[in-house]
Amino acid sequence: MQFELTREFIDKLRIHIDNKEEVAAFEMVKELHPADIAEIYEELDIDEAKFLHLLLDGETAADVMVELEEDDRERFLEALPSEFIAKQLIDKMESDDAADLIGELSDEKQEEVISYIEDLDQAGDIVDLLNYDEDTAGGLMAKELITVNENWNMPTCLKEMRKQAAEIDEVYYVYVVDDNNILKGTLSLKRMLLASANANIKNILNTDVISVRTDTKSEEVANIMEKYNLVALPVVDALGRLVGRITIDDVVDVMREEAERDYQLVSGITTDVEHSDSPWLLTRARIPWLFIGLFGGIIGALVIGNYETDLGLYPQMAFFIPLIAAMGGNVGVQSSSIIVQALATNSLGFDSIGKKLSKELLVAGINGIILSTVIFTYNYFFSDSFALTITVSCALFSVIIFASLFGTFVPMFLGKMKIDPALATGPFITTVNDIMGLFLYLMIGRLFFAIF
Amino acid sequence: MQFELTREFIDKLRIHIDNKEEVAAFEMVKELHPADIAEIYEELDIDEAKFLHLLLDGETAADVMVELEEDDRERFLEALPSEFIAKQLIDKMESDDAADLIGELSDEKQEEVISYIEDLDQAGDIVDLLNYDEDTAGGLMAKELITVNENWNMPTCLKEMRKQAAEIDEVYYVYVVDDNNILKGTLSLKRMLLASANANIKNILNTDVISVRTDTKSEEVANIMEKYNLVALPVVDALGRLVGRITIDDVVDVMREEAERDYQLVSGITTDVEHSDSPWLLTRARIPWLFIGLFGGIIGALVIGNYETDLGLYPQMAFFIPLIAAMGGNVGVQSSSIIVQALATNSLGFDSIGKKLSKELLVAGINGIILSTVIFTYNYFFSDSFALTITVSCALFSVIIFASLFGTFVPMFLGKMKIDPALATGPFITTVNDIMGLFLYLMIGRLFFAIF
Repeated sequence: MQFELTREFIDKLRIHIDNKEEVAAFEMVKELHPADIAEIYEELDIDEAKFLHLLLDGETAADVMVELEEDDRERFLEALPSEFIAKQLIDKMESDDAADLIGELSDEKQEEVISYIEDLDQAGDIVDLLNYDEDTAGGLMAKELITVNENWNMPTCLKEMRKQAAEIDEVYYVYVVDDNNILKGTLSLKRMLLASANANIKNILNTDVISVRTDTKSEEVANIMEKYNLVALPVVDALGRLVGRITIDDVVDVMREEAERDYQLVSGITTDVEHSDSPWLLTRARIPWLFIGLFGGIIGALVIGNYETDLGLYPQMAFFIPLIAAMGGNVGVQSSSIIVQALATNSLGFDSIGKKLSKELLVAGINGIILSTVIFTYNYFFSDSFALTITVSCALFSVIIFASLFGTFVPMFLGKMKIDPALATGPFITTVNDIMGLFLYLMIGRLFFAIF
Repeated sequence: MQFELTREFIDKLRIHIDNKEEVAAFEMVKELHPADIAEIYEELDIDEAKFLHLLLDGETAADVMVELEEDDRERFLEALPSEFIAKQLIDKMESDDAADLIGELSDEKQEEVISYIEDLDQAGDIVDLLNYDEDTAGGLMAKELITVNENWNMPTCLKEMRKQAAEIDEVYYVYVVDDNNILKGTLSLKRMLLASANANIKNILNTDVISVRTDTKSEEVANIMEKYNLVALPVVDALGRLVGRITIDDVVDVMREEAERDYQLVSGITTDVEHSDSPWLLTRARIPWLFIGLFGGIIGALVIGNYETDLGLYPQMAFFIPLIAAMGGNVGVQSSSIIVQALATNSLGFDSIGKKLSKELLVAGINGIILSTVIFTYNYFFSDSFALTITVSCALFSVIIFASLFGTFVPMFLGKMKIDPALATGPFITTVNDIMGLFLYLMIGRLFFAIF
């Protein structure tokens, strides 16, 4: 039932395309799901993909466009004339996908494409949708809805629904509104199955409906749909009038993107890149973090430089520089990641900052005691300097405590300032902790080497 | 429409609970969604939550249990008698949630609870579901389905569907089977709305249905539902007989958990923990990574120890130790994260390992040249040793190249070995790169300080 893309499949398809064997090429893909065809495009070069695309029927061609990765789609659209985009693609898409696609075009091309759309209702919907911010409920929603009036009875309702359903890909809910288009509730397939043939909508609708406003942030939309296990969510305007609906598949994309972004931030990658992007794009996404690391390293060098005499006197101090610096960075990232995740899922609860820091202090204390004891034991047996032994242990303990508290505090502070707390898992925390670790280590070393 | 949990709400509710004011407490929660009530429980202690729970009606009480976090639920269930669990909770749940809940109990308690279930069909379904691995389609699916026979006509079908719908929370699709219960297709609300009143099922079913087998891995289930934008996915056995269905909300949890796990691995946290877990659990999740870091640090110390004489001769070498070590770690994590993500989303394509390594080499080369030039310029003006200047630059360049290739190779190798490649973003890569970085730095230093 499911298609598995293989090297052999692509090679065979390529041969057909290169030989311009339209029938043979079409035979290979005609039974496939649009998502599978989109996957095939990613293995072809742009001319091969275009050859294949022109063989598809309009509906499939439009669906494939929706399934393509944004970068690939943009490149693809550039190669197509505006009239073709409007009449062959946009015409067969739901309004949210159409608006997303048009939103990716240059301003000039946008106007051109819109002017070619023949269905004025659809053109109006798309222009409406383009006005919303991309990362709000308005930017996610589609205008296609099945709506019925609460004053209708079941037979009228069925007739109306039938009319409207023809336009829509997939129906999960029927929305119920009053005469002013204010959202009143929903009808689900289950409710309709169980309703008697002549029931009045008013008596069978489910009024317990969760909705969002057009300006609700996408992340909140995702959290709401996840929390309440919804497959579709109605969107209302400031007056409570029904204007669109968001389906779970759009939100799954939001969630995936959000998770990937956090993952990339903590890995030290700044923009949304993928393995298949160009080396230049990959470099650009990675180098800012490395620059921060470089800058941190230079400050670290200056810090150590201040203690050059001590290092000259006790060169063994240098042995544990990487250990102390790395542990500071590691502990800090651990602490901040836990807070960032709690913030992202809204599960931080109502404890005060003080209480959270005390808890982190306890965790850091346990970790610190265990690790300092281990390194103390190691150095006690394998190092000939007791001053070094005690310096490394004390410094490690101090660094773990400092990095934990700092790693907890920074994302909480960023969250309060309405700055994305995930930024705190990246370069900043690690670098500051590296440097602070070095500083503490060398300070403590100077002290203990003077004593012992 | 939506409930926002506040400190004041909890405080007020607590006062009612502490004063045993049942009516007042119930008034505060009776209108809330089960997911909101579950959120409230997390702010209460276990006795307060139990007091509230006993006020709820059976349906809501069961739904709240489903919404609770796994840890909280386990603690909660321990406090409840088996008979209550079977008759008040299990009885009102869908089979997948019931099986998850029972699966969390001790073996002994499991048997006890199952023996109390009065509905033998449901008990049978649950026992069936408990046999499947938790992380397979069988472990995710529910047994509640609406199935119709392909040979029926619409009126028979509607009658049957009505009977079955009463048992099910939410209906997205009606599944069509043949006489042997082999899955033939689906009917959606849209199809049913558009069908004529006397249509035969055979003529209106959608045969283009995607299904998975009971032993399909959960991650693959999630990838399939995301790729094909499905809200429900039928599960078949080895013979193609329909045995259950997975809904998108269960898969959203799988996706969220997978993303969190990757995020935690790259942050150096080993098991699935949350901010609200006990300090002991948090320590246990964090310390293995720190131990690897400590172990790496000790090896680092041994490496540096081997060059003690050189460091005594050129103490300025010590200044850049943290920079070199940190850059190796950073570059390695960047490289491996990109590969890990590509593997997770199946988007690695068909390029050979050699081609991927050459691409990474190019990216590393650009990064390396830029960063080495910057540090060269810095040291040229601010350091008095030309040998140091050239050593740091060359070492930095070599480290970036090594760490990139190693960071790319390891997750690809793990993936090939069927080991979770996300492990490669964690401790191992960073530590090896730290040590290799030091080694290269000191080797190159010895060479250049001998020359210049």
